[in-house]
Amino acid sequence: MTNTMGHRIVLAARPHGTVTLDDFRTEAFEPRDLKAGELLLEVNYLSLDPYMRSRMDDRKSYADPLKIGEVMRGESVSTVLASKNSAYHAGDFVLAHTGWQTHAVLSGDSVRKIDPQLAPVTTRLGVMGMPGFTAYAGMMAIGKPARGETVVVAAASGPVGSLVGQLAQISGARAVGIAGGSTKCAYLRSELHFDAAVDHLAKDFDKALASACPSGIDVYFENVGGRIWHSVLPLLNRFARIPVCGLVAEYDGNNSDLARDYLPATMRQILNQRMVIQGFLNYDLAERYYDDFIKDVSAWIAEGKVKYKEDIVEGLENAPQAFIGMLAGRNFGKLLVHVAR
Amino acid sequence: MTNTMGHRIVLAARPHGTVTLDDFRTEAFEPRDLKAGELLLEVNYLSLDPYMRSRMDDRKSYADPLKIGEVMRGESVSTVLASKNSAYHAGDFVLAHTGWQTHAVLSGDSVRKIDPQLAPVTTRLGVMGMPGFTAYAGMMAIGKPARGETVVVAAASGPVGSLVGQLAQISGARAVGIAGGSTKCAYLRSELHFDAAVDHLAKDFDKALASACPSGIDVYFENVGGRIWHSVLPLLNRFARIPVCGLVAEYDGNNSDLARDYLPATMRQILNQRMVIQGFLNYDLAERYYDDFIKDVSAWIAEGKVKYKEDIVEGLENAPQAFIGMLAGRNFGKLLVHVAR
Repeated sequence: MTNTMGHRIVLAARPHGTVTLDDFRTEAFEPRDLKAGELLLEVNYLSLDPYMRSRMDDRKSYADPLKIGEVMRGESVSTVLASKNSAYHAGDFVLAHTGWQTHAVLSGDSVRKIDPQLAPVTTRLGVMGMPGFTAYAGMMAIGKPARGETVVVAAASGPVGSLVGQLAQISGARAVGIAGGSTKCAYLRSELHFDAAVDHLAKDFDKALASACPSGIDVYFENVGGRIWHSVLPLLNRFARIPVCGLVAEYDGNNSDLARDYLPATMRQILNQRMVIQGFLNYDLAERYYDDFIKDVSAWIAEGKVKYKEDIVEGLENAPQAFIGMLAGRNFGKLLVHVAR
Repeated sequence: MTNTMGHRIVLAARPHGTVTLDDFRTEAFEPRDLKAGELLLEVNYLSLDPYMRSRMDDRKSYADPLKIGEVMRGESVSTVLASKNSAYHAGDFVLAHTGWQTHAVLSGDSVRKIDPQLAPVTTRLGVMGMPGFTAYAGMMAIGKPARGETVVVAAASGPVGSLVGQLAQISGARAVGIAGGSTKCAYLRSELHFDAAVDHLAKDFDKALASACPSGIDVYFENVGGRIWHSVLPLLNRFARIPVCGLVAEYDGNNSDLARDYLPATMRQILNQRMVIQGFLNYDLAERYYDDFIKDVSAWIAEGKVKYKEDIVEGLENAPQAFIGMLAGRNFGKLLVHVAR
C-alpha cells in the first residue's frame, strides 16, 4: 500500500430537494498501490461547482449520476507525491479530477500539468479554469455581444458570471449583473466596473432590472435558472441570444411556482423576438476555443482588464457545508476548499 | 368611384380562446378611386394561415394586432382590374396583401407580379409562397438536417410541414410526420413518402412517436406548439435543433395543462442535450434564402421530388368557417379561399 492515510467524502443519500449535511459521509481510506503510468496525488485545492448538484440525483443528465457510497466528483489542483509515469515527478502541480478527497491515485494521462509561475494555481479552477472557460466559450460561440448591446448575467459575482460581465465590457457592450445582496452588487459596480448591478433579493427586483436595461436585453447568459428567467423574459430584444450553461436554482429543487405553465410564454417570446436559446457544455467547445481562452484571459488578467475573486474554505471536512451554502448563494467569489498545503 | 361593389370580412370581436363565427362580420364596400401608382385588384385566391390567429388578440406579437372593425389581413393572388401604375396592366396576376376581401386598392410598389406560366398561381400562396419559404428557410438556416438524422415535424400534411419533411428526405434524413387522423397519415406515407407518420389523435401517441424515432430526434421543426412538445422533448438527441416558426395550438388558447410548470423540464433538456431552440420569421431570412428557394423548389417540383396538396374552399363568405376549421386541424393541404375567377 501507499502508507498514506486519506479522507474522502461520499454521497450518503440522494437529496430530497435541498441538499443537507446528511447527504454526505466522511470516510478514511488508504490509497491503493500505483500501477505503471499512475500518480499518487495530494489534493491542495478542491473546486466546488453548481454542476455537482445534478450528479447527486438519480436522473439522466449530461453526465452519469453518482451511485450511493461513491466519492463526490470534482476537479482539484493537486501535487504529485509519487509517480510511476515518466512525464511527472514528485512536487509537480496538476489539474486533476480527484473528487472530494485528500488523496487520489490517477493515471498520468488523465491529468494536466500546470505551471505555477503563469498565474496562482487556484486560478486554474476559476477564472482560468472550467468556470472561466464556460463564460468565454458561451460568449464567443453563442452570446456574441456587439458594441452597444446589453448583456445580463445572474450569479454575477460568481466565477462564471463575473467573467461574462467583463467579457461583455471588453466587447463594448453594457454589462448588467444580477447578484444576491448589496455587498455583491457593490462589488460588481466598484471592483468589476459593471454598468449596473441588481439585487435579486430586493423587493422591486423586476422594476430594478428593467431600469438597469433601458434598451432591453440582447444577451442573457443563463447560469442559474429559476425565477430570474421570468423577470428577464419580457425585456429580451429581437434576435436576443441566450447561452444556457447551468440551472443551479433548479438543481436544488427550487422550481418556480408550479401552479402555472410558463413554457407557452417562453415559446411565444422565442418566436415573437426570434431569439435563440442554446445549451452548451464547456468541453464541447474546448477544441475550438480553449487555446484562445488561455491566451486572451491570461493577457487580460495581466492588463488588469479581468479581475477575479476567490472564496476559500479551510479543510475538506467543511466542503459539504460550503457546497450547501453555494447552492443558496452564500459564497462570494469562486468557491474553493483548501485541503492541504 | 370605381363603380365596383366588393365585400370584405372584418374583425367584429376579439376571440375569448377559441375563435367563433361571431368574431367576424361581412361588409359591402365600394373600392375608392385610384391615385397615381395604384392598382384596383380583384382577389382570386385568398390564403388562410395560422399566423392570422395571433393578430386577432390585443397583445404584442411580431406584428401589430388588428383593430376591431379592421379588415382581416392576408395574402392573395389577385388580378389587376385597373392600373394607374405603368408597371402593371389589366389582367396581370399579382401576389398582394389584400386581406379578406373581394377587391382592394393597393400601391403597385406593395405587390409582386407573378408569372402564371412558371407554376399554377395558387402555389405562390403555398409550396412556392410564404409557407414553403418558411419551411425552406427554417431548415436551411437552423434545422440543417444531415444524412441519417431524424427530422420530426407536426402539422405535417400542411403547407409548411409537408415541405419540411420533403426537404429532410432530399437531405438524406429520415422524415417523421405528425398529423391528425389516419387519412392524413396515410397521405404522408404513400404520397409524400415520409419514412413514418404518427397520428396525434391516437391514444398511444407518445409510444408511437418513440417507435417512429428509434434513433431519437435531431431536428424538431416547431410549427404548432402545445401538447406535442411534451412528447417530443424526451426524444431529442444531443445537439438537436428546433426551429420555431409557429405555435398555432397556443394561438387558439389551447394551452397545455396549466397546473404544472413545464418550463424547467424544457430548460434542463436544452442544457443536458446542448440543444438550440431558435425562433424565426420567414422575412428575416428572405434576403439570404429567397432566390435559392424559388430556384430549388421550382426545380424539385418539376423533378417530382416535391409534391403539394391544396384545400380550396369556394367563396369569401366561407373564409371564417374554413379558418376556424384550420385552427382545429380540419383542413387537409394548403387552405385557400377561391374568391373570384
